[in-house]
Amino acid sequence: MDKESSRRASAVGWRSSRHHPYGRYRRPGPRPRPRDSQTGAAGEADRESGARDGRRARVRPRRAGDEAGSQRAAHEGNGERRVTEDLLFLDRAAVMACAADVDLCEATAWALGHHAEGATRMPAEGYLPWTNDAGGQCRSLAMLGAVEPPGGTPVRGVKIINAATTNPALGAERAGGVSLLFDQHTARPVLMAEAGWLSAARTAAYTMVSLRHLGPREWDALSVIGCGTLARAHLELLGTQFPQAKSVHLYDTDPERAADLAKWLGQHCPQLHPQIAPSARAAVGAARVVVTTTTVDTGFVPAAWLEPGTFVAHVSLSDLLPDAFVTAEAIYVDDVDLVAENPRRTLGALLRDGLVAAPGVTPRRGDATGEGAAVPEVNGTLGQVIAGRIEAVRPHRGHVISNPFGMAILDVALLEAVHQAALRRGTGQRLCLY
Amino acid sequence: MDKESSRRASAVGWRSSRHHPYGRYRRPGPRPRPRDSQTGAAGEADRESGARDGRRARVRPRRAGDEAGSQRAAHEGNGERRVTEDLLFLDRAAVMACAADVDLCEATAWALGHHAEGATRMPAEGYLPWTNDAGGQCRSLAMLGAVEPPGGTPVRGVKIINAATTNPALGAERAGGVSLLFDQHTARPVLMAEAGWLSAARTAAYTMVSLRHLGPREWDALSVIGCGTLARAHLELLGTQFPQAKSVHLYDTDPERAADLAKWLGQHCPQLHPQIAPSARAAVGAARVVVTTTTVDTGFVPAAWLEPGTFVAHVSLSDLLPDAFVTAEAIYVDDVDLVAENPRRTLGALLRDGLVAAPGVTPRRGDATGEGAAVPEVNGTLGQVIAGRIEAVRPHRGHVISNPFGMAILDVALLEAVHQAALRRGTGQRLCLY
Repeated sequence: MDKESSRRASAVGWRSSRHHPYGRYRRPGPRPRPRDSQTGAAGEADRESGARDGRRARVRPRRAGDEAGSQRAAHEGNGERRVTEDLLFLDRAAVMACAADVDLCEATAWALGHHAEGATRMPAEGYLPWTNDAGGQCRSLAMLGAVEPPGGTPVRGVKIINAATTNPALGAERAGGVSLLFDQHTARPVLMAEAGWLSAARTAAYTMVSLRHLGPREWDALSVIGCGTLARAHLELLGTQFPQAKSVHLYDTDPERAADLAKWLGQHCPQLHPQIAPSARAAVGAARVVVTTTTVDTGFVPAAWLEPGTFVAHVSLSDLLPDAFVTAEAIYVDDVDLVAENPRRTLGALLRDGLVAAPGVTPRRGDATGEGAAVPEVNGTLGQVIAGRIEAVRPHRGHVISNPFGMAILDVALLEAVHQAALRRGTGQRLCLY
Repeated sequence: MDKESSRRASAVGWRSSRHHPYGRYRRPGPRPRPRDSQTGAAGEADRESGARDGRRARVRPRRAGDEAGSQRAAHEGNGERRVTEDLLFLDRAAVMACAADVDLCEATAWALGHHAEGATRMPAEGYLPWTNDAGGQCRSLAMLGAVEPPGGTPVRGVKIINAATTNPALGAERAGGVSLLFDQHTARPVLMAEAGWLSAARTAAYTMVSLRHLGPREWDALSVIGCGTLARAHLELLGTQFPQAKSVHLYDTDPERAADLAKWLGQHCPQLHPQIAPSARAAVGAARVVVTTTTVDTGFVPAAWLEPGTFVAHVSLSDLLPDAFVTAEAIYVDDVDLVAENPRRTLGALLRDGLVAAPGVTPRRGDATGEGAAVPEVNGTLGQVIAGRIEAVRPHRGHVISNPFGMAILDVALLEAVHQAALRRGTGQRLCLY
């Protein structure tokens, strides 16, 4: 993106500078309006791209009568309208190139803020699990999401993200799929993109936003437990979002994977000094910012490992043991209901069992134990912090935990930012549907 | 497809002959096994296509550590495996070309039979509705579906089908979207196809199968109420499935649309003599087979319009008035629960209100009216008829109604048949995801 485009895009809401602080939550307001070029400067990028709504009309024969029965008025006078339909396809390389033009953290904060204000929707996920011939657990998830800012341009789409536990043994990523964005007016898919990379980037962007708002005020070292795809996505963003970060402590049950990530860091993020920790405990104790990106389903990090003043971005499901949650200075999630409804997640089980309370619920510990003390409470959501609705508690004498579920609205919001960048750059491949 | 391929494909379950009777339901048995070429002849087509599972492996650098944390074993020894991932894309023209190679009705009957035997799954649909700036009602539907024959090769996928009521005024089809098929082993999307045409063809194929099993034994004329996309899809299949059909009576509230369809018939199905009916009543009375393909939400066809011996393929939601259901000789659906849970559909409302009973429930009319007579009962599903589990009642002195909901498993089953044809033909465009 050239500087002029960058400035213009920035002026209407999406940041393109990699180092711009995004910590402030931007209230709903003008963003680029690709599908409505009548509203001034915001539409320029789209006119430049030559596509008013990312779809081109061409002359071709139209079949007789596309609607049946009673929708007569809709057809009168339109018998000669001719259209074809296509959508823009972005492979992973295109997604990555376009993502480099936008601030994924800004887009994340934008969606989270609207979520806190009730301007988002996430219909129930479609979930299809099965077992493959090798005994691997497989599943398809169809996750619809919408961010609908009052008075602003809505963003809607779906992420189809499938996984098989046996994929890594085949040399393939565990999860993969595609995401689609929908046109506000016609409901048609206007964009399809490879979903795996952006899904990991979304998760990392959430961590960066949580660290910005809830992390220690001063820090220069970060520990990463679990050195796979998600860890790399985090470290890629870290370098651009927190230039003060100087060292990274890496731990993985597979030393080779930790070594691979250290090598990758040396090549791609030379400002981050990697150190391989001899144990998970050593890694956790080595920095005041701890990120867990594992696939474990059994906890292994007790409260005792966490130094005072530590912020834990608990990205994976179950790394922290229950006592770490129960003794936390503060706990933040992305959506209380989504976390509470997932007992596979340690915090979900604690909420279900009443050992941690949802915000504002505050049952007395005495209800269960007779001790009469209040159980610890989830403070609320990161979106509420961003929207200024609740206080941001940073780690002081204890530790603060961020434990998001992972929301489709973030995938959709980030994909829209990528989409806008693709239209500005002219990146992507047109797929004609008919 | 050449004759040899056709014969081979036919031998393992999918029919390629357009005129082959498909009325018999084929019990679960061997079908082409694209993803398992070790099982003999069925795998040949895939080896011919040069792709064992429709995905090609190429040498490219693999990123370090694609998994995090505890899945150590999965990675050992695989650090040097290099893969790229792609999927096959079929636009509408490719879908249509491939569909011409297979018997869509056979594939429909195959899925319906397995549905009756409990070998299918349809997770709850994802549903995202909104209103566009022009006041049009929009929605996105994400419909996952799986057909999992005991001992056979499963078929799984998703249809993303969106619609806006304002699309026809823009000269566009009301609904549109894409469908995906998933790999059994890796869960990855292996195929993406334009969904609109096949969705209509699926609906038409269901009607043909219902007509085969439940229609009059002798007939040569058919009436169509509502002359849009769905009507055309029906008439396209009719010509190949029922060569005895000689005349078609057409009615639409928009006479121009009826005239357009008559003209199209003259060009594409010269064996079918089209007649434009002066009224809906005239159309309904003109033939013993009546197909409704409208978008009405208020009924207009009373029982009195239906001549004895009439079969009604009630494809749209609400054309028949309640008395037509209540007086029917028999009523068949595709899935009792799906129909019953949809009160927008006349039969759904009747089931909810207890004026028609679900199979085997048989409440007494007296429960509501004090008359003590049994209310009419839905006989069951077309799949149960195909599987030989319930009797097929054809119209005799009254009328028989088929009123399907529309199931994603049919889209998935038909798309897999199309997919197999595409692999045999070498049709489609490879999209590299990364």
